[in-house]
Amino acid sequence: MKREEGSDHGAVEAIRSIFYPQTVAVIGVSDSFQRVGYNLFESLLFGGFKGNIYPVHPRLKTVLGRKVYNSLSEIPEKVDLAIIGLNEKATISALKECGKNGVRGAVCVAGGYREIGEEGEGLEKLLQEAASCYGVSFIGPNTLGFINNEIDLNTTFYPLNLPKGSASFISQSGGLGLTFLHQAADAGLGINKWIGAGNRSNFTFTNYLSFLGEDEGTSAIGLFLEGTEDASSMVHRASRINKPVVVYKIGRSDKVSSSTLTHTGTMSGSYQVYRDIFSQFGLYTVDTIMELIASLKAFTVSALPGGAKIGIMTHTAGPSIVAADMLYSRGYSIPELTEDTLKGLYKIAGENPPIVFQNPLDVAGMGFEAGTFKDYLELFAGDPGVDLVLAIYCQHKNWRFPSPEIIQVKEKVKKPIIACYPSPGTLLEKERPLLECHGIPLFGTPEEAAWAASALVEHAARLGGRSLT
Amino acid sequence: MKREEGSDHGAVEAIRSIFYPQTVAVIGVSDSFQRVGYNLFESLLFGGFKGNIYPVHPRLKTVLGRKVYNSLSEIPEKVDLAIIGLNEKATISALKECGKNGVRGAVCVAGGYREIGEEGEGLEKLLQEAASCYGVSFIGPNTLGFINNEIDLNTTFYPLNLPKGSASFISQSGGLGLTFLHQAADAGLGINKWIGAGNRSNFTFTNYLSFLGEDEGTSAIGLFLEGTEDASSMVHRASRINKPVVVYKIGRSDKVSSSTLTHTGTMSGSYQVYRDIFSQFGLYTVDTIMELIASLKAFTVSALPGGAKIGIMTHTAGPSIVAADMLYSRGYSIPELTEDTLKGLYKIAGENPPIVFQNPLDVAGMGFEAGTFKDYLELFAGDPGVDLVLAIYCQHKNWRFPSPEIIQVKEKVKKPIIACYPSPGTLLEKERPLLECHGIPLFGTPEEAAWAASALVEHAARLGGRSLT
Repeated sequence: MKREEGSDHGAVEAIRSIFYPQTVAVIGVSDSFQRVGYNLFESLLFGGFKGNIYPVHPRLKTVLGRKVYNSLSEIPEKVDLAIIGLNEKATISALKECGKNGVRGAVCVAGGYREIGEEGEGLEKLLQEAASCYGVSFIGPNTLGFINNEIDLNTTFYPLNLPKGSASFISQSGGLGLTFLHQAADAGLGINKWIGAGNRSNFTFTNYLSFLGEDEGTSAIGLFLEGTEDASSMVHRASRINKPVVVYKIGRSDKVSSSTLTHTGTMSGSYQVYRDIFSQFGLYTVDTIMELIASLKAFTVSALPGGAKIGIMTHTAGPSIVAADMLYSRGYSIPELTEDTLKGLYKIAGENPPIVFQNPLDVAGMGFEAGTFKDYLELFAGDPGVDLVLAIYCQHKNWRFPSPEIIQVKEKVKKPIIACYPSPGTLLEKERPLLECHGIPLFGTPEEAAWAASALVEHAARLGGRSLT
Repeated sequence: MKREEGSDHGAVEAIRSIFYPQTVAVIGVSDSFQRVGYNLFESLLFGGFKGNIYPVHPRLKTVLGRKVYNSLSEIPEKVDLAIIGLNEKATISALKECGKNGVRGAVCVAGGYREIGEEGEGLEKLLQEAASCYGVSFIGPNTLGFINNEIDLNTTFYPLNLPKGSASFISQSGGLGLTFLHQAADAGLGINKWIGAGNRSNFTFTNYLSFLGEDEGTSAIGLFLEGTEDASSMVHRASRINKPVVVYKIGRSDKVSSSTLTHTGTMSGSYQVYRDIFSQFGLYTVDTIMELIASLKAFTVSALPGGAKIGIMTHTAGPSIVAADMLYSRGYSIPELTEDTLKGLYKIAGENPPIVFQNPLDVAGMGFEAGTFKDYLELFAGDPGVDLVLAIYCQHKNWRFPSPEIIQVKEKVKKPIIACYPSPGTLLEKERPLLECHGIPLFGTPEEAAWAASALVEHAARLGGRSLT
């Protein structure tokens, strides 16, 4: 019962029901912490899900101090979602049981289906038939499941506590999805929903994109893609979503089938075609997990710039040159400052400053003190040719970061500002909440700041219908 | 008195004297924590330098509870190194004073020389003449100075505490150099020496490379380069250094003069020529500060592989596919496993494992438990076709990382292993010391692990005279 484009509305409704259950059963719970079933159950408890949770096992009495139900039919209320932690064959029977007991949504964790070849393919067809016959929608199989962080619901067997926010992520791979979650948490990127798509036996990437596109809690969508048969439908759907969609697509490996989109023959060539098509349809492509995180951080924290011209200010040149180098290489404009701005800058600096004012603007020693940093930044960010500003300040033991000043400037000039503080991670963590709650994403390296700027400018151009290059 | 290639030995001796002083004077100390002079002094105290430290100022009596000397000549013993925190004109006089008082080494922090144009160029010539006439060697001007972490000597005005180790770094930019230091500290990369080359008025990149090439405490060298007039001499010198030299070169920006190496006209073209020439001369080029850190971590922690064939093992496919994708795209081989290895793997797995064994090897749920992870890893790493192994294990609340097991396997099979634990940064910090003291570098993302593998394989090939592509 794989859903096609025409029936997308039904799929979105089914996914939404799965993501917002009131009652959840874990089928195949275990009393051993080494087993998947045990951890599926613990993830629900550890994550703090507020709905009712029913562990199910034919013989166990209690697990983690909670009563175990011997079958679905023993559960005294309607179950909205079943997480099935059984093997590939038992999962099929369990799905039928779900249907018989009125459970309309499931997560099928087990692998051993079409990803292992012919025999598995047969099993996956049986799974699909069972779901279809018994009216159950399911995520997977061969998946870690999903997380709805908005309601503290973690259906994976990895117990986690994640920062809340509005970034959502669809991952073809569970493990890469976990990598994303840990990197996101370390970077203070708040998560809304997370989907391990697995074999996509019931829902397609297109369905998941549609769901997140309509989802109120989601303001930006990340997507990790190896290869997919619904690429064409997916890019068309993405092009109709008004939120940024960031794609991390691997494709130089022979594991990736790119035949749906291209027949150029060479793998790197087809990868480039993928990228070009993504770009044409408004999906934003990144090259590493670090860039994925930086882009989503930018989208979920900052407003979009009114244009594509970037200003960079610093008190120490190197990081600004690295950022400028990356931005130039992507074809962006780092415009010259107006005469008025230059005059104003030289006025602050006084007579004969040992400095050449330009963009990127290095104010050197005159930028060490937060108040003076602000004076320069305010003039610089106010330049009518500048749409978006990168503000760089290196950590110093005896001086403080100009965070309140950067916030004041942003609120005055009403343009997006990205902060870059090359600093120890522990100090970034301290500065981050203040800056980011004022819409200023913070990064520790000029590369991340440049990736963030690039993402914002591209998406603004997409929405504005402008071409950048 | 800019030194040329022929006189490199003298330059190296002069640099070494500057890096290993017994007594250090800070000229232009201040009692205000906002001033550079104050912080130059505090860096020495905060860093824990064991030699004698003499703050110098014409009028101040004490700073930070220490007696201030009113001139160099008042200092009761021979001074080996003067750190000059004065402006660009006063620095020239101070350098002469150094010479008159027998101080043979200096750091000139001030900017305002040739980097600002014609007038500054004149001043820089006067600085060079003063140094030459009075027999003083100096680092800078327009520099943060240097750090010899081996003897806790930090001559920059950024007080720092850095992890010790054998990675050394030459930075054309102070600010990018600071970015490097903070990223290195966060990644647990131990630093030996750090050089802010500044305007390179007295020593060239070639001289610094020669110094670090001979330096016993340095096992790998990082280099951040914008552009240089001694590129030819530099690459020739680098090619004769038996240590890995990792270059982070920016070059798409119009700030970078690449005319020494190429005349192709287009900036991206000239950047590519730079890269090709670096590669030809055995310098290893990276694209981001993250890759620079990962490469130096690999070089300073791991032994080199005996060949270029890479094995990747995981319990969750995604990260292994990302790593493989990156390695494939760089032309490396991820070879098929031998029949014997495959037989052994299937033997461990028992009858009908729902899995296809290959390289990259995903052992799925059978790899959750550290002991079983080891059984697979030992067979896999022992495959005669595999020279280097990436071992990937995702963090789980109720299971432990297989660190002791990975160490045992490495010591048994005697091949380099790179560990990748997609996990929260705080947990990486806990696992890192054990793994890395056993020669196994640890990373949190598959991209970093692949960069590390790539660096090791390239340098091994360089030393072995083998061609990889």
